[in-house]
Amino acid sequence: MMMMLMNKLLSSKICKYTDRSVFIVEHSTIASIFQKHFPGDIVEIKGWVKSKRKMKENVFIDVNDGSCSKKLQIVVPQQNKNTDITTGASIAATGKLNTTASGQIELQATKIDILGECSLNKGYPFAPRKIYPSEYIRQYLHLRPRTNKFASLLRIRDALNFEIHNFLHLNGFVNVHTPILTSSDCEGAGEVFVVTPNSKQLLKDMRKSHVSLEEAYFNKKAYLSVSGQLHLEAAAHGLCRVYTFGPTFRAENSKSKHHLSEFYMLEVEMAFTDSIEELISFIERLIRTISSEVLNKCSEDIANFQSTTLDVLEKNVDRFKSEYCAKEGLSKEHEMFLVKHCGGPVFVINWPKQIKPFYMKECVNDAIRVSALDLLGPNVGEIVGGSLRENDYQKLKGRIPEGNTELDWYLDLRKFGSVPTAGFGLGFERLIQSMLSINNIRDTIPFPRWAHNCSM
Amino acid sequence: MMMMLMNKLLSSKICKYTDRSVFIVEHSTIASIFQKHFPGDIVEIKGWVKSKRKMKENVFIDVNDGSCSKKLQIVVPQQNKNTDITTGASIAATGKLNTTASGQIELQATKIDILGECSLNKGYPFAPRKIYPSEYIRQYLHLRPRTNKFASLLRIRDALNFEIHNFLHLNGFVNVHTPILTSSDCEGAGEVFVVTPNSKQLLKDMRKSHVSLEEAYFNKKAYLSVSGQLHLEAAAHGLCRVYTFGPTFRAENSKSKHHLSEFYMLEVEMAFTDSIEELISFIERLIRTISSEVLNKCSEDIANFQSTTLDVLEKNVDRFKSEYCAKEGLSKEHEMFLVKHCGGPVFVINWPKQIKPFYMKECVNDAIRVSALDLLGPNVGEIVGGSLRENDYQKLKGRIPEGNTELDWYLDLRKFGSVPTAGFGLGFERLIQSMLSINNIRDTIPFPRWAHNCSM
Repeated sequence: MMMMLMNKLLSSKICKYTDRSVFIVEHSTIASIFQKHFPGDIVEIKGWVKSKRKMKENVFIDVNDGSCSKKLQIVVPQQNKNTDITTGASIAATGKLNTTASGQIELQATKIDILGECSLNKGYPFAPRKIYPSEYIRQYLHLRPRTNKFASLLRIRDALNFEIHNFLHLNGFVNVHTPILTSSDCEGAGEVFVVTPNSKQLLKDMRKSHVSLEEAYFNKKAYLSVSGQLHLEAAAHGLCRVYTFGPTFRAENSKSKHHLSEFYMLEVEMAFTDSIEELISFIERLIRTISSEVLNKCSEDIANFQSTTLDVLEKNVDRFKSEYCAKEGLSKEHEMFLVKHCGGPVFVINWPKQIKPFYMKECVNDAIRVSALDLLGPNVGEIVGGSLRENDYQKLKGRIPEGNTELDWYLDLRKFGSVPTAGFGLGFERLIQSMLSINNIRDTIPFPRWAHNCSM
Repeated sequence: MMMMLMNKLLSSKICKYTDRSVFIVEHSTIASIFQKHFPGDIVEIKGWVKSKRKMKENVFIDVNDGSCSKKLQIVVPQQNKNTDITTGASIAATGKLNTTASGQIELQATKIDILGECSLNKGYPFAPRKIYPSEYIRQYLHLRPRTNKFASLLRIRDALNFEIHNFLHLNGFVNVHTPILTSSDCEGAGEVFVVTPNSKQLLKDMRKSHVSLEEAYFNKKAYLSVSGQLHLEAAAHGLCRVYTFGPTFRAENSKSKHHLSEFYMLEVEMAFTDSIEELISFIERLIRTISSEVLNKCSEDIANFQSTTLDVLEKNVDRFKSEYCAKEGLSKEHEMFLVKHCGGPVFVINWPKQIKPFYMKECVNDAIRVSALDLLGPNVGEIVGGSLRENDYQKLKGRIPEGNTELDWYLDLRKFGSVPTAGFGLGFERLIQSMLSINNIRDTIPFPRWAHNCSM
């Protein structure tokens, strides 16, 4: 059956709603020009004008198409009527590749067409060759992917994302999509968003007796997920090694440069793991591997971040402004101090039980601490939080408030074929922020959302 | 700077909060036993008991750990006290690998430990060797990943997911995470969810003048995304080839076996594409590639679906119950007919403009139709919807209602460096449902959400 369907898919055809024959024009990406083409090749490229210089006989136009950070220089004779072109405009150019005296490849255009104009007079906010502060660029989220540095950020983010999937697959992990809409609230924190249909009419139509109008759609309150961990643990009890990597939400009133209302989190759960050292070594291997892969593959994009001088590690944080309070854990200031003191990323393990969530496992022979870890990183503080999970049914039950039946399903995981499990959550934007020394987390994600801000 | 941080990350160390030395015990996964180990090897395995047979001298226990669909047979002498083990229990077993008379590999256990018991008496819902209907299993979402068939589904889903990322990266696409929280409503449909903080106090604290209480958090209404397309187009105008692959939401009151409130969608946008044939050929190549990769890599898991006899294609749908109405497009029944008539998946192109969204491009010399496509698949109907995008500023402006300023940013994409763009959205669960002939879409996703259902 399956084979038959697959074969059908492989031979899918086009309904003859059209008489046009298939005719696909292939142009070259700028990345492929630098990688695969040679001087003398005739190519067509398409992209956006980054800058332009007029010389005696020729106009030199730098073009980028987003396929890499490099720009291709297009040489157009002055007599071509399309040399009156502006930065930001989209063009198509055809011609022969040539090597300049300095050894760089350029395109001697015989044909150049303007596809879409771009004018500062009509409101385009980025003037050529000008460097804008990131706060300014952030006002134009829809145009931000056109700026050199943010395009590099998007490619690096994509590469990190891909290497995470790759690393986990090579290590036998299954990507399980945990739900965004959830009726259970993992951390017990109050800072959650609730979700209801926009249509009041729909709610009225769907309402059942004994259910409030706002709960009519799901017959209960539905929240946006603050963590996929508990659901992921359910999957780990069948598949052993699982992860989820997607958006997570916090309804915080925060203007902090380390917080977003919507952010990406990698969450990993491993069954049959009962050592915090094993967890630490896994996290280290993960970050080490994806970092070196991305350093290797994105070196040109990363170069766009090397001029960043911001480094909070250089600030003097030797004396705390805030006092350490065991009930509250480490402040951002304490985290930064530890990172500076240790000369780099640092794991803090065996935390006081009272400040950590109910599902964390007690340390061996130490009922006041739990086998938990935080990985603190330069520039941001906490990047990863993880722990061994309490897998003893009675102990876990004792830590859930009497009468709370919402977590009965979670207890079931320990009632039937319970196994020692460990896991962690990694804040993806925090990792990027730490690696690239980015001042504000809002510049690590394509479309940032935070208190009072949800544009587009 | 970057290099320095990376080097620090590579040498991250453990704070000496602990005196325990690092000691990691490695057990073997069952997948690795079948792939890498040989008779005579001493191994330790951990997993869950699938079934048990008592013979004269030995007990035979089939164990699976989710690393593959295969079960490993453990042979335990009758005198071992731990042979009183039940289906669903978790165990650890050590011993020597051996080849049976029939050529299969098995483990001659010298040591077996029960890690977690499992008892039908205490409420475990799955009896050994019994096959349950999927509606029954779906009542126990938290235990469902332990069932053989659903574990296979999760591994196939994961493989498809991974191959999609792989294919798109090989083709130069950048994964751009479009937002879940959005202030614009792509399709103009009324079936959206709205999002507000759960805490009324927070809303009061954050409220600014001239903003309603329920809009206090973002200063405006925030919805759950019904599509990342418009945001993706913004990214395509800098990076050319982009995609997003994540959860999408519809607040529909539907009990249909083809609809979910939260589902996964792959959305792809390609700049410099102005031919519907190019789009069709790309979609075909994508589905063909991921299908053959998954057929190849997951053959054993796919075998779990071969006994499925359901195939709506076999039903007689030659005569329509519903009449075709150009204003409403194709009904599910019409879609199924076309698929049957064409003997497999089929693209329907050049749709009436009046039933398609505002951003689709008119056909050449045909103002009443748009260059749009639907891919219809066996068992489900629509799997993919796509189109060329209108990239003419004036034409696009003419199709947005006067006074709607919410989409000014989208118009900007055509005002500054506009390029011909094409894209599509692929319903991931629909694809899985079609490929594996799964009757109900709720059995294609780990934690399904639909009208009146949001458990866990």
